[in-house]
Amino acid sequence: MTERPDTNPELDLVLERVVDVPHELVWRAWTEPEHLVRWFTPAPWQTVACEIDLRPGGRFRTVMRSPDGVDMPANDGCYLEIERHRRLVWTDALLPGYRPAPEPFMTAMILLEPEGTGTRYVAIAMHRDAEARQRHEDMGFADGWGKALDQLVTVAKEL
Amino acid sequence: MTERPDTNPELDLVLERVVDVPHELVWRAWTEPEHLVRWFTPAPWQTVACEIDLRPGGRFRTVMRSPDGVDMPANDGCYLEIERHRRLVWTDALLPGYRPAPEPFMTAMILLEPEGTGTRYVAIAMHRDAEARQRHEDMGFADGWGKALDQLVTVAKEL
Repeated sequence: MTERPDTNPELDLVLERVVDVPHELVWRAWTEPEHLVRWFTPAPWQTVACEIDLRPGGRFRTVMRSPDGVDMPANDGCYLEIERHRRLVWTDALLPGYRPAPEPFMTAMILLEPEGTGTRYVAIAMHRDAEARQRHEDMGFADGWGKALDQLVTVAKEL
Repeated sequence: MTERPDTNPELDLVLERVVDVPHELVWRAWTEPEHLVRWFTPAPWQTVACEIDLRPGGRFRTVMRSPDGVDMPANDGCYLEIERHRRLVWTDALLPGYRPAPEPFMTAMILLEPEGTGTRYVAIAMHRDAEARQRHEDMGFADGWGKALDQLVTVAKEL
């Protein structure tokens, strides 16, 4: 697998699963806005906007809509590392162009590796402290990211 | 000049000057710890420790000592972009490995371009808000970074 960081169970949340779609299609679902909006938020939440500028320092911005139809403040951040088909790192601690963000929460890393005809999928969310990690867990990280991954697989199979 | 970002005068501080040492030597003064400690902090302050792991996500850590001999808490952060001899970007908003930092303050960008036998030197400090920018200005950005640059030139000429 592409260089996998040491994770810290007190600060990080990890989702790891083997999914039955090729890693090239998982990559497309993560990096093409028209596909990402279809799976990124667990239903009945929706992602109603997505901007992707796929280069270090480039923008990754999404807007989520609640089941009641209320749009949340945009999640704005930037990419840090892009290794096509293998490794995607971004953070909301920095805005596009690397300016420190007013409300940093996490850095996320998606690692993809071919496994049989499918993909070993590892998603890591890194937080500044145990409180932020706990808050993310309480928000439903495992269930939410897992359900979103199910949706990703459905979308990726149609690509 | 290597890609220069749009700066925002309300959020950024900029030092630009032409110095009479080649850009390769300015680069060495910025990226080799044994040289950096000699110029990084305006005298009578000192830099008494420096760790450089020159890759995206790698550590850039310094410790400053006050004129009274008191060591400050370490400044810890990571590199974001490294374009040898030309462009160095790091932030203290992310710790090494990109984990969000507890106390983010700025992202810094050093841009170097050959000019005659010397170097056009541009240092940009980007802040999250106008308050942080003002605090940095009040801490003596222009004088401090300018004096450190004078020291850098002295060190670089000996390389």
